Amino acid sequence: MSPIKRPIIITIGDPEGIGPEVTEKALRSTKTESPIVLIGTRDIAGVLPYHTIESIEEASKETISFLKVDPEGNDPSFVFVKKAVSLALDGKAVGVVTAPVSKKKWLDAGNNFMGHTDYLVKRTKTEQWTMFFWSDKMKVALYTTHIPLKDVFANIKKDKIKRFCRFINSELLRLTGSRSSFLMSGLNPHAGESGTIGKEEEEEISPAVEELKEEMNIEGPFPPDTIFLESEKRKNPVVISLYHDQGLIPFKLNNINSGVNLTLGLPFIRTSPDHGTAYDIAGKGIADPGSMIEAIKLADQLKYSNI
Amino acid sequence: MSPIKRPIIITIGDPEGIGPEVTEKALRSTKTESPIVLIGTRDIAGVLPYHTIESIEEASKETISFLKVDPEGNDPSFVFVKKAVSLALDGKAVGVVTAPVSKKKWLDAGNNFMGHTDYLVKRTKTEQWTMFFWSDKMKVALYTTHIPLKDVFANIKKDKIKRFCRFINSELLRLTGSRSSFLMSGLNPHAGESGTIGKEEEEEISPAVEELKEEMNIEGPFPPDTIFLESEKRKNPVVISLYHDQGLIPFKLNNINSGVNLTLGLPFIRTSPDHGTAYDIAGKGIADPGSMIEAIKLADQLKYSNI
Repeated sequence: MSPIKRPIIITIGDPEGIGPEVTEKALRSTKTESPIVLIGTRDIAGVLPYHTIESIEEASKETISFLKVDPEGNDPSFVFVKKAVSLALDGKAVGVVTAPVSKKKWLDAGNNFMGHTDYLVKRTKTEQWTMFFWSDKMKVALYTTHIPLKDVFANIKKDKIKRFCRFINSELLRLTGSRSSFLMSGLNPHAGESGTIGKEEEEEISPAVEELKEEMNIEGPFPPDTIFLESEKRKNPVVISLYHDQGLIPFKLNNINSGVNLTLGLPFIRTSPDHGTAYDIAGKGIADPGSMIEAIKLADQLKYSNI
Repeated sequence: MSPIKRPIIITIGDPEGIGPEVTEKALRSTKTESPIVLIGTRDIAGVLPYHTIESIEEASKETISFLKVDPEGNDPSFVFVKKAVSLALDGKAVGVVTAPVSKKKWLDAGNNFMGHTDYLVKRTKTEQWTMFFWSDKMKVALYTTHIPLKDVFANIKKDKIKRFCRFINSELLRLTGSRSSFLMSGLNPHAGESGTIGKEEEEEISPAVEELKEEMNIEGPFPPDTIFLESEKRKNPVVISLYHDQGLIPFKLNNINSGVNLTLGLPFIRTSPDHGTAYDIAGKGIADPGSMIEAIKLADQLKYSNI
């Protein structure tokens, strides 16, 4: 008999958003290897046969366990995540799947974080991390994230690019148990076209890729407007995008209701659906659980080798 | 009996690329209102029943006319385009469809232009023009084109944005005979998120859009990573992208073998397929004519009201 796996925690997000609905819908159709522990308030729990537990040790693979958490006057969605991270840091969960929250509500309640990732990174004192977007057909690592486009250029430095690539290479090896291949995007139109439309490719990006080739499977830089067509021709490579929209424009366009946001670098697995609270459709029963299903499946499938 | 329309000229592009092949394949399956005149060298003409003509006045709607042009020792594809533009400027053609050429061959032969668009704009002394990408489901106008990404920022000025929007609004009205609606993209992640991730939206882009609302149907700025999802929900709006890859990453991803490059601002219609010479597959008979078919159809369907 194999030992019982540590559970995956799902935080149900803002109770007024679509988080509880997509979580319930997802759990109806998703079988996992690891036990599932929901963290939320009981009043938002719906028709699934939840087994209410007092502590995470009572989680069982047979039913979905519900760990009720008192919001203590704070924004409930923040308290759910706080509790989940405490448990994961204590080694009591293998990973956390986070349903969407309202950044504004967090800030209004005095929780000064720019969203889940910001909180997770600070709370776990993680120094190097990245936003990674995962779907069956497309995998994108963002080299820079929520910074003004103008500030991207100061980051385009050979050594920094090399560190980043090494980091995602080793993190993905830990997570998936196998080596990934990488396609590096250029920064300028046509990847600079031999220096005639921008110099960053020749001066920083190409040298980084050339030096990295000795230690990992990487090619590029490719023209940004065709790198995703190039990646479709290959065996599921990871595209490294140099800025937020370079990666997320194509990812969101091609992975509606199937994309997963994965945070690399944390001491536990963390995935989330690739959508927000969607207040405009909350409570109507029409929210698509596709992205949440994929987020749960991915958290269940990945295994950090050292946790 | 309606008067005979002026023809559309198709230049067959680099004879060593896939231009001749996609042109022939496209003409087998595409019926046009306007007569078609091919410009190329006779030796690349294939199995279609072409009617060789000595001057464009002999073009007839019944057969495809072939106007043979002597390359005169220059790169043939350049001579084809030069001839086509002369005829269009003389008012003898309503538009030109250009099959792909090699920019390198042009430069090697001493034709110092960065491709078709550069030549067309300079030869016709066109001051304001833009690259426009057209498919049934997606329409994208590029505010800036082949400049380093770093140089985009100097162009993000309210008055310049307003001039650009007015220009494409009036050009599209001339071309299509009806009013278009526009979605303006932001520049920064999340369109700056109220100034927390970049100031250009608040300082330049939003003010431009607000002032333009009085004279045209325009909204925005929208977050770049969801504007194309937003456009899919609406009635075929034009997305204004602020830089090359912001527009071409999604356009190329969603319009493989169906996208058309349209140049706005020229004194005649000009379309081209959205692909290159593709030497790697030339001569194998496997090139997809989809984009060329759409380029011919679009040239046939658009009508500059003043030409």
